Amino acid sequence: MLLGACLWPAVARAQPGQPARTTVPGRDFPRLQPDGRVTFRLEATGAQQVAVVPLGNDNGLGPNPVPMLRGADGRWTATVTARPGFHYYALNVDGARVNDPGSRTFFGWAQETSAVEVPDPEGAFAQPRPVPHGHVRSVWYPSRVTGQLRRALVYTPPGYDAAPRTRYPVLYLQHGSGESERAWTEQGHAHFVLDNLIADRAAVPMLVVMDNGYAVAGSSGAPSPRGNEAFGDVLLQDLIPLIDSTFRTVAARSSRALAGLSMGGGQALSIGLRHQDSFAWLGAFSGGLRGGGLPGGSPPARLRLLWLGMGHQDEAYASAKSAHEALTAAGIDHVWFESPGGHEWRVWRRHLYELAQRLFRSTRG
Amino acid sequence: MLLGACLWPAVARAQPGQPARTTVPGRDFPRLQPDGRVTFRLEATGAQQVAVVPLGNDNGLGPNPVPMLRGADGRWTATVTARPGFHYYALNVDGARVNDPGSRTFFGWAQETSAVEVPDPEGAFAQPRPVPHGHVRSVWYPSRVTGQLRRALVYTPPGYDAAPRTRYPVLYLQHGSGESERAWTEQGHAHFVLDNLIADRAAVPMLVVMDNGYAVAGSSGAPSPRGNEAFGDVLLQDLIPLIDSTFRTVAARSSRALAGLSMGGGQALSIGLRHQDSFAWLGAFSGGLRGGGLPGGSPPARLRLLWLGMGHQDEAYASAKSAHEALTAAGIDHVWFESPGGHEWRVWRRHLYELAQRLFRSTRG
Repeated sequence: MLLGACLWPAVARAQPGQPARTTVPGRDFPRLQPDGRVTFRLEATGAQQVAVVPLGNDNGLGPNPVPMLRGADGRWTATVTARPGFHYYALNVDGARVNDPGSRTFFGWAQETSAVEVPDPEGAFAQPRPVPHGHVRSVWYPSRVTGQLRRALVYTPPGYDAAPRTRYPVLYLQHGSGESERAWTEQGHAHFVLDNLIADRAAVPMLVVMDNGYAVAGSSGAPSPRGNEAFGDVLLQDLIPLIDSTFRTVAARSSRALAGLSMGGGQALSIGLRHQDSFAWLGAFSGGLRGGGLPGGSPPARLRLLWLGMGHQDEAYASAKSAHEALTAAGIDHVWFESPGGHEWRVWRRHLYELAQRLFRSTRG
Repeated sequence: MLLGACLWPAVARAQPGQPARTTVPGRDFPRLQPDGRVTFRLEATGAQQVAVVPLGNDNGLGPNPVPMLRGADGRWTATVTARPGFHYYALNVDGARVNDPGSRTFFGWAQETSAVEVPDPEGAFAQPRPVPHGHVRSVWYPSRVTGQLRRALVYTPPGYDAAPRTRYPVLYLQHGSGESERAWTEQGHAHFVLDNLIADRAAVPMLVVMDNGYAVAGSSGAPSPRGNEAFGDVLLQDLIPLIDSTFRTVAARSSRALAGLSMGGGQALSIGLRHQDSFAWLGAFSGGLRGGGLPGGSPPARLRLLWLGMGHQDEAYASAKSAHEALTAAGIDHVWFESPGGHEWRVWRRHLYELAQRLFRSTRG
């Protein structure tokens, strides 16, 4: 590599605002303005059309692409109104949908994707505080189900290494469609959420295991969004035995939870309800409910907790709410948590924050 | 997130070759052809000019940008001759230097950067084998030197958790300019190199600590390529005490090594030679040597090993070779390792493979 001094564009130090947390360290854009808007900038001397493209419905950067304007120096700029939260986006350069070189990348939308984090006054629980921090381990393991080497990420709480006789309950926590095992820490700050809750004695110290929700038996190559039909088998036959033999867990259904967001919420309910001998605590964030209620199969008779969360602006809100009401009418004990926000990480961080406080308590949540 | 089935472009299954290891799982391009070339593809319907841009001198994709050709469907394609190894690149779309959406990203060149890995028949030592795998932990810690929360990555060898009375030596291993603490695992496969060596009993089980080599006292924000002058203080005052108090290390100079590549090699020599009370083993990969020899200061009188490596095609080869010869003439004991390759990850993986076999042995390497 060349000397670092050569590597970044000249910057104007007197600009207002500050780079976002999701901006590449050392870069000035994307930039949070004092008025809460976000400024994007791209150098593209020969381009004809450049735009910021918010990804997904109810994106916090708005519903539509925002044209960037070309300056005399060939740099394109747009300043966009944004609500608090973590928002995926792309840049469109003459028809090519690409990442913003100024953004860190997050695995979402089935590829590395730019995102901007707009500070959330109500989201401090997911930001690092000066409390003891747990570790997040990358754990590689051969899957007998898929025949491939896979990676799981495992959060161990503060003090895990210093307490060699202590055993911990385990939350298995799954990402959404197009994401990967990285999502819950990189997008979701799950480790900071848990650090903060544990420091406040608001959650039981626990392991959190985050695997890739995609798995195809006998597939070649790494897990990819091309299929997830073998994930339940990977979880039950490969991953749980690995975790229980590698970490100091309480290897019992009463100390094992399964939760996920969107696609991962569907996996949590469909796998968890069929395997209540393995899981006593289930959570589904912004997904997993059908119009009529729970996915087909076993009633949640043996669960200690069935936790269901949904954002008010989520497209699936009305359908999920009616499922919740049907569960209530049927006398099926559960927690229903609704709050402002769409199908987005601000909501899922909040869901984890709420769920984690209820897990592994001696009484029902 | 939408259903995964919507997320990737339609693909032709009958294409020759296969996606690279560095290609986003589920994508077809970049693609390794049976003849060893690499095919890149980008959808950019409105673009006028698109090119593959190899980054850096002696890049394995060649010295110059390679124009991509536009197909009738608005997809641009180029097939490029490539030598084995890991090669950073960008795409230039009408003057915008952007990542390839089909590539995973690696922190290099002071931002998230695309790369393609071309299989190296002589590089199997850095690929995963069916042997026990160590873990790589993300460890967050507050730096008293910089006032910021930093992250180090820590490799623990297979069996670390199962042997609670065993203590381990520690290699501190640093990345190059424009890279980050992620580089040695993501680009360098350091964990697989160590797994393989330990399985073959060719290296002593050890911890490997990989931190970000950028640090500025009192800076705001995350470590960035804007400065590294405080890294030595972070290493000695923050990181080593943290590691020795958190992990089961042998906290002694004879069990502590410091090595790095390029800028990190310079850091290893300049910090390590000044602090031989802290490190008995030093390694510099493709960097750190001046024309006359070692960086100024203390002679390496107390070292157990001074290991210097350089690729034949590295721009600094001749200068480093003359430094090696000057050290030899001066009677300064050291290992000089030269091998084919440039300023690139193929060489640095090989350097780690060679160095790790010599570390923490009772006799001089």
